[in-house]
Amino acid sequence: MAKGYNLAIAGATGAVGQEMLQVLEKRNFPINNLKLLASSRSVGKKITYKGTEIAVEELGTNSFKNVDIALFSAGASRSKQFAPAAVDAGAIVVDNSSAFRMDKDVPLIVPEANPEDIKKHNGIIANPNCSTIIMIVPVFPLHKAKKLKRIIASTYQASSGAGAQAMIELEEQSKQILNGEKANPDIFPHQIAFNLFPHIDVFQANDYTKEEMKMVFESQKIMNLPELRVNCTCVRLPIFRAHSESLLLEFEDDITPEEAREILENASGVTVTDSVKDNIYPMPITASGKDDVLVGRIRKDISRNDNKGLSIFIAGDQLLKGAALNAIQIAELL
Amino acid sequence: MAKGYNLAIAGATGAVGQEMLQVLEKRNFPINNLKLLASSRSVGKKITYKGTEIAVEELGTNSFKNVDIALFSAGASRSKQFAPAAVDAGAIVVDNSSAFRMDKDVPLIVPEANPEDIKKHNGIIANPNCSTIIMIVPVFPLHKAKKLKRIIASTYQASSGAGAQAMIELEEQSKQILNGEKANPDIFPHQIAFNLFPHIDVFQANDYTKEEMKMVFESQKIMNLPELRVNCTCVRLPIFRAHSESLLLEFEDDITPEEAREILENASGVTVTDSVKDNIYPMPITASGKDDVLVGRIRKDISRNDNKGLSIFIAGDQLLKGAALNAIQIAELL
Repeated sequence: MAKGYNLAIAGATGAVGQEMLQVLEKRNFPINNLKLLASSRSVGKKITYKGTEIAVEELGTNSFKNVDIALFSAGASRSKQFAPAAVDAGAIVVDNSSAFRMDKDVPLIVPEANPEDIKKHNGIIANPNCSTIIMIVPVFPLHKAKKLKRIIASTYQASSGAGAQAMIELEEQSKQILNGEKANPDIFPHQIAFNLFPHIDVFQANDYTKEEMKMVFESQKIMNLPELRVNCTCVRLPIFRAHSESLLLEFEDDITPEEAREILENASGVTVTDSVKDNIYPMPITASGKDDVLVGRIRKDISRNDNKGLSIFIAGDQLLKGAALNAIQIAELL
Repeated sequence: MAKGYNLAIAGATGAVGQEMLQVLEKRNFPINNLKLLASSRSVGKKITYKGTEIAVEELGTNSFKNVDIALFSAGASRSKQFAPAAVDAGAIVVDNSSAFRMDKDVPLIVPEANPEDIKKHNGIIANPNCSTIIMIVPVFPLHKAKKLKRIIASTYQASSGAGAQAMIELEEQSKQILNGEKANPDIFPHQIAFNLFPHIDVFQANDYTKEEMKMVFESQKIMNLPELRVNCTCVRLPIFRAHSESLLLEFEDDITPEEAREILENASGVTVTDSVKDNIYPMPITASGKDDVLVGRIRKDISRNDNKGLSIFIAGDQLLKGAALNAIQIAELL
């Protein structure tokens, strides 16, 4: 591998960082040197990549000498603190946090939707929020064909969206409840086992959560549709992995379910999973570990008198396409 | 209790039948004689009501002699088979199944919405579908004030909606998955533990499920709004008890979240559960065991340019208000 990139991963020990390593290995990304960065807590930890053990180093402003591409997935505050240093050192940053997503001079990229926007970068390229990516992959090709006007979304989000510790919390609480014990919330604001709550990220002044507003603003930016109207309700569920979304779409042009199915069958990053007579539709357990977003329950919006509405149900692995895979696809575009 | 009714419960050993007994006892319903009916499988089983053991008898056409009120919750086919015999014997049937709900001469009642319709009965009164009842309780008072035009609903439905055996299946599959074993679906078409599926009841010709179409047709009938437009996506979740729903409501008149909150605070059967700064919103674990439907996340629909849209999130105990309690409230109206 004489010809390869010097790559750094900031947040290498987290849920998304771990997925990034697997995706890099699986896609045989051309790496010359791989640097694994994390907080001081994880320093010295050894992580195996392609059979070689790599020691985790502490993330700092001096971590990025000779780094070509730095993948950040260590939270927004660490991105704000260390991404500028990486850019100064000459690296291109692909940032998975919300730190720079809405900055005017930072491209926000879903490779299936707006790969050309990547050229406008000034050192930092942002990876969108997981629920947004999963929604954009099937919605963008429908928009290209029929001009999207409005999205009504209700989400069904897995616990792993809140990180590796949150997955452990779901597992431990589930065992406690099944043993007749009380569950003790730690990462989450309430019991997550056998429960749900319409609360992801912090509440904003308009009583929507930040997660819900990310889906509004990021969708408008990625699809270059500042006038797009979006209403979201984001809900956390006792599911380990993969987010699902119930979407109602309104278009400027007429659209039939048959047309939508044909568009989606030819769209990249999408697998149509829609044969209700065989009980086939998107589910978290079938979406987990898959690169594609699954789309099913494709049907006419029966609450309209015209043919401009479509209902779909989607599921996607939010650690893969919703985070690690999308970030590495961005790096591949570079 | 000299003055009381002769009451029969058909389906007394099921999940809803068991709840009915608890609700009757809690509300001190005036009972003279209580007859517990079930299939031959359960004959001889003893059930305790107010400290007295009652033996379960086999449900048959001859079960209803001297019965004043017969509460049916034994599935649609048994209702079709035995409810006419109960009416012939002089009983008034309150039927929890879907058998007669859309019959023109059968009133479909949510006591908070259309109690006056009960007078039109010809022996049978239908109890609506659980998700419909839970939706109607908060939506009807908003409609009375602001004239409802359209509902977009995505549901988050508990496993117990599929009966007592389905709850056991969720429990056993959860243990299997946590032990690293494979889950074996029996009642449900797919693994329910740590999973979900957008599939409740059978699929119809228009690719909506029967559960989704129940919410359309039953809402129109109960609220006497044949022109009401409704779009539903119904999803089964790994939660033991209580259904939640993400609702987007469109009105003819302007409505502010403050007005909606005031209307809901004065509505019967509703508890406003909405203080996002304190992480308070409806959840299944807080709705379980409660008579009221919890309503929260009350906010303006930001995908509209006018003030005619409202987003809310609700949760209600579908075995109580969604079934047993509503049926007994109907019996109390009689």
